[in-house]
Amino acid sequence: MSHNTFGHLFRVTTFGESHGPALGCVVDGCPPLIPLDAADIQAELDRRRPGQSRFTTQRREPDEVRILSGVFTDERSGRQVTTGTPIALLIENVDQRSKDYGEIRETYRPGHADYTYDAKYCIRDYRGGGRSSARETAARVAAGAIARRILPGIAIRGAVVKIGPHEVDRSRWDWDEVDRNPLFCPDARTAELWAEYLDGIRKDGSSIGAVVEVVAEGVPVGLGAPVYGKLDADLAAALMSINAVKGVEIGDGFAAAELRGEENADEMRPGNSGAPVFLSNHAGGILGGISTGQPIVARFAVKPTSSILKPRATINRAGEAADIVTKGRHDPCVGIRAVPVGEAMLACVLADHYLRHRGQVGERAPG
Amino acid sequence: MSHNTFGHLFRVTTFGESHGPALGCVVDGCPPLIPLDAADIQAELDRRRPGQSRFTTQRREPDEVRILSGVFTDERSGRQVTTGTPIALLIENVDQRSKDYGEIRETYRPGHADYTYDAKYCIRDYRGGGRSSARETAARVAAGAIARRILPGIAIRGAVVKIGPHEVDRSRWDWDEVDRNPLFCPDARTAELWAEYLDGIRKDGSSIGAVVEVVAEGVPVGLGAPVYGKLDADLAAALMSINAVKGVEIGDGFAAAELRGEENADEMRPGNSGAPVFLSNHAGGILGGISTGQPIVARFAVKPTSSILKPRATINRAGEAADIVTKGRHDPCVGIRAVPVGEAMLACVLADHYLRHRGQVGERAPG
Amino acid sequence: MSHNTFGHLFRVTTFGESHGPALGCVVDGCPPLIPLDAADIQAELDRRRPGQSRFTTQRREPDEVRILSGVFTDERSGRQVTTGTPIALLIENVDQRSKDYGEIRETYRPGHADYTYDAKYCIRDYRGGGRSSARETAARVAAGAIARRILPGIAIRGAVVKIGPHEVDRSRWDWDEVDRNPLFCPDARTAELWAEYLDGIRKDGSSIGAVVEVVAEGVPVGLGAPVYGKLDADLAAALMSINAVKGVEIGDGFAAAELRGEENADEMRPGNSGAPVFLSNHAGGILGGISTGQPIVARFAVKPTSSILKPRATINRAGEAADIVTKGRHDPCVGIRAVPVGEAMLACVLADHYLRHRGQVGERAPG
Amino acid sequence: MSHNTFGHLFRVTTFGESHGPALGCVVDGCPPLIPLDAADIQAELDRRRPGQSRFTTQRREPDEVRILSGVFTDERSGRQVTTGTPIALLIENVDQRSKDYGEIRETYRPGHADYTYDAKYCIRDYRGGGRSSARETAARVAAGAIARRILPGIAIRGAVVKIGPHEVDRSRWDWDEVDRNPLFCPDARTAELWAEYLDGIRKDGSSIGAVVEVVAEGVPVGLGAPVYGKLDADLAAALMSINAVKGVEIGDGFAAAELRGEENADEMRPGNSGAPVFLSNHAGGILGGISTGQPIVARFAVKPTSSILKPRATINRAGEAADIVTKGRHDPCVGIRAVPVGEAMLACVLADHYLRHRGQVGERAPG
Repeated sequence: MSHNTFGHLFRVTTFGESHGPALGCVVDGCPPLIPLDAADIQAELDRRRPGQSRFTTQRREPDEVRILSGVFTDERSGRQVTTGTPIALLIENVDQRSKDYGEIRETYRPGHADYTYDAKYCIRDYRGGGRSSARETAARVAAGAIARRILPGIAIRGAVVKIGPHEVDRSRWDWDEVDRNPLFCPDARTAELWAEYLDGIRKDGSSIGAVVEVVAEGVPVGLGAPVYGKLDADLAAALMSINAVKGVEIGDGFAAAELRGEENADEMRPGNSGAPVFLSNHAGGILGGISTGQPIVARFAVKPTSSILKPRATINRAGEAADIVTKGRHDPCVGIRAVPVGEAMLACVLADHYLRHRGQVGERAPG
Repeated sequence: MSHNTFGHLFRVTTFGESHGPALGCVVDGCPPLIPLDAADIQAELDRRRPGQSRFTTQRREPDEVRILSGVFTDERSGRQVTTGTPIALLIENVDQRSKDYGEIRETYRPGHADYTYDAKYCIRDYRGGGRSSARETAARVAAGAIARRILPGIAIRGAVVKIGPHEVDRSRWDWDEVDRNPLFCPDARTAELWAEYLDGIRKDGSSIGAVVEVVAEGVPVGLGAPVYGKLDADLAAALMSINAVKGVEIGDGFAAAELRGEENADEMRPGNSGAPVFLSNHAGGILGGISTGQPIVARFAVKPTSSILKPRATINRAGEAADIVTKGRHDPCVGIRAVPVGEAMLACVLADHYLRHRGQVGERAPG
Repeated sequence: MSHNTFGHLFRVTTFGESHGPALGCVVDGCPPLIPLDAADIQAELDRRRPGQSRFTTQRREPDEVRILSGVFTDERSGRQVTTGTPIALLIENVDQRSKDYGEIRETYRPGHADYTYDAKYCIRDYRGGGRSSARETAARVAAGAIARRILPGIAIRGAVVKIGPHEVDRSRWDWDEVDRNPLFCPDARTAELWAEYLDGIRKDGSSIGAVVEVVAEGVPVGLGAPVYGKLDADLAAALMSINAVKGVEIGDGFAAAELRGEENADEMRPGNSGAPVFLSNHAGGILGGISTGQPIVARFAVKPTSSILKPRATINRAGEAADIVTKGRHDPCVGIRAVPVGEAMLACVLADHYLRHRGQVGERAPG
Repeated sequence: MSHNTFGHLFRVTTFGESHGPALGCVVDGCPPLIPLDAADIQAELDRRRPGQSRFTTQRREPDEVRILSGVFTDERSGRQVTTGTPIALLIENVDQRSKDYGEIRETYRPGHADYTYDAKYCIRDYRGGGRSSARETAARVAAGAIARRILPGIAIRGAVVKIGPHEVDRSRWDWDEVDRNPLFCPDARTAELWAEYLDGIRKDGSSIGAVVEVVAEGVPVGLGAPVYGKLDADLAAALMSINAVKGVEIGDGFAAAELRGEENADEMRPGNSGAPVFLSNHAGGILGGISTGQPIVARFAVKPTSSILKPRATINRAGEAADIVTKGRHDPCVGIRAVPVGEAMLACVLADHYLRHRGQVGERAPG
């Protein structure tokens, strides 16, 4: 992960600010002959798009994506496919309304990157957070849509599992439910509870944190490059790089600190297919930085949106004391729209490791 | 982070297995004229060295480090200093006793990387876990000792903050205490409790998880390279890459999911030095991936040692069911010796970002 | 240099095909506060633009560049400056006329990358060479325009020094002349000779090779990162990566093979400024991979355009024998327009090493 | 190529100075199950070893290599094989005699990197050139020995083709002859001429430049990663990074500047194996940065050894004028021992691209 690029063989570079003319990405190293057209990517973008419910920012962005390069018609199938060359994706910003942000021009919003960008670069694009805006994550989702297509037989899904103090009830977990409510909640009853809770938060002019879980099923054993390119290390970086994320865990994560060795180590039994059957998945599908063949399970904590209507003490660019109230259009719980972003990052990391493994070891069957 | 190398300008490459002839690292990109001799590195290695108390493995390794390259006498000072060229460090393995591991030659230990390495590479060095052994972390500590010396005015410290269900009492936190007990515990009373608790675990032939906290004070504002080279993203990868780590959090971490916006966003007030004073540090010293000037605070969860005396169900290389008891010398709580390793990784990440920031922005004062 | 990205701290990623909707680049890691607007970049692009004389392809491309991100108004100066975040540049393709290329859809043009792209990827964008087209170099020139602005006091210039058998007369070398003739020739008399020679080549339906020289003056001593990131190694890769380049040399280059040690090693004498005065520059400004403070001098050989009107034996996609004549609009000597491209690559390499040196060593004066 | 590391999937990091305790390398990313023992590497090192004839330096270094990690016994074959983890190789320096170099402690040798290292780092290991010594190339040869073993069916050979003004007679080219004479000359008669010529150079206390050609046969079509990771771009960097190299060319190289399009573009005809037959190889086996399946042919120019017995004008560290005569043990033509080094670099670049291609495209047959 280097500045605005991540990945080794499947490499994603993103660009663009919240209120600039456009944002986008270049996806390099994609295998050729992968069927890909704009609609494939658009479907993923639409899941992250703002303004779709009262629980997300009311900014209206169509987030319409154009493919600028890297695809061509395959004469054999008549389909548009990747050519192996860099795929550039462009999303124009439409609903910029930058006057909303005039008030933060001189004053740093607590919890935002306003102060740190200015201190680092001595210049910042104050319109909507500029480069530090969560709007950048649209480009990640677009890249993730490509990553998904090169992972044969791998299903990547995500859900919100906690909002404020309210955790999902795992006994009622239903993946299909995630797409039926605007909160990416896998349990219909919890979704109702959250909706009510969030209405209170929103009316209060406040915001709240959340925890998101992402899962990849069908990952073959053997992905990961020890010891610094471990699959979980790359995944930790990828998820921590998402705006507002403050923690990442794999499998049991922090709960593993309370386990004894005999509780934690997943036992194995011979399976029918040659691969072992694991009797549990405390490891979250990764041992020694390498995938075990079990589902990869990761969670990340998202802090509450820092833009709130409550007045907060801060300073301005001149270093003077000031108070600030952040008006404008904001997500009361930015963790909600982080679900497709987390899925996208997981997809990109897996795609990269899938290619890296194939590079080092070839295509022979594992074990 | 790419295979066995991490860092961009301050780059660390490690090599070596638990029971091979030697392990070590190459540190590349170090600034010149940094005073450095083997004793500087040895002091850090001695903090991680096994066999120093009944709470760590009884393997006796002197972990004596040799500097093979990258240093020379500075005629001005008469001191040995870095030359700007790669610094190779070598640690010979002495107490290998590999016969202890004969029993795991054919059988995969649950919770270890035995199965995944074998499935990925179709070959593994079964002696003590080979490359996946925590012994590799000696090389990280050695590299971290160099990293510390190039960070002017930055103090990096760590402590165990939780073992099993027992958390440290933060009201009694005393950094000086950390070096006085063999558990890296910042609170003498908790240290006693943990010692007793661990004796029980050890006698039981079991093991237990832990949480480690690492803190960097004196970090200047402005370190970090958004948006994929964020300071916290690189830190998450660095800490997650440590053996047995299953979770990483920055500042409030997962607790931030339960906070409201007005609780979480650290307020600012004008400070005397030109830099702001923050009224809290929920952010753990990082906003938008860039250091704020506050202490950087990170925690990581370490799972219990997987080598235990309790019999566990597993399979062998032939895919047949087997039971395994892991004899040999093991840490009952591998989280303890992870403290100097976590500090080293934090030091290396900061050193890298210190140089990267200087490269992009130069040496002007921030803000 | 990795796929479509080059540079470490100053990183350039390009995308786009000859006949796709657009091409462009993302420049990442640029220092902040560098004055930059589209006109700065346009000026460089205009030097490379096709269709400006009878000696270059008659394709009419305005090569109009848009800055999509990474710049903002500096309130202190009122100027648009870089913000330290990724700068995306976009150039739309206008004059595509892809029907011209219908005939090469099934047949591989000798000397082109048609066969190798197809063999590697099993798919290729046959329209104008797709990604392998020299049109990609527009993005390099745009990136180079940014690189130039971050190199204080460094002048980067280039010239054609040989076309076919006809070398420039160095005794009449005049840098100002380079911009006065359409052949980037530093000698008016040779320019006339070349023009006549090229008219013959063109009428003959043929093409011819060339040698280009690029020079950077004002480069400080100390840039370069031994031993694999040597300044000349990075420069060799950068120049060799330009379409149709088959050779690169630094200073005396291949002529050095005929020199004796006492002829080749540039003697030094004390200079007034503290830095030495070199009595010659056989080294081309680089010793041990590090700049000496003398002008950096590099040359590269460009093969003749492979698209010619002479029929050539080849095969088609089905593996059958075929003959091909490449109609369409082509440069009779592609080396001519390679001059601004070579300058751009030199600028990018120097910018990267300037930042890398500052990162490792800081801003102290050398030596 | 970044400081002291090169390659993406097959990565080589080297360390060590001419007169330090040891030098060596870490080879990371090597596929598993490649048979490898020290003798395999030693055989290559012995070809580069100094002191084997009167035409190379009389320094006596056994260059005995030890494998420190990354290999283990394969129980199936009983052979020692690679495990997929980093392979560390160590070569101890034996014949250091550093007193020979006392005289250059304060005085910069023209043509060497003495001045540039000191100006860049403000410190240098003056003993034998320290890190800038050609002794570092032993580590490259060791890495290359591993690279060769992972390239199935590829033969990599090299020869000196020119010493001073004397070129080899290609009509008498005999690869077997290269190993029969101490000059790596493919033509016995030219070898005699060169020996006589070099005796004169040596008696004169002078030195002379050379050109080396390296060739890889059996390279499959499709290796190379356009457009900045082109096979020839990576090769140019790899060869230019060798000490004393001032020029690199592929195929016809600089001679291509004098060719017409119809002379240069290699015609194709259907072949028996499905792959085309090329009627010539002006391209040196690479088109558009991707291998064609023809032999890869590269040449590099090596400047004369800068250490000579002729007095030369220079300055000392204090900036004062001085004269210098470089006594000690030196190669009269450092190009000779560059042959195995050039082969090694070619092998490493091909190994890296072989793995990268397999990563992006998989193992299907080309085209």
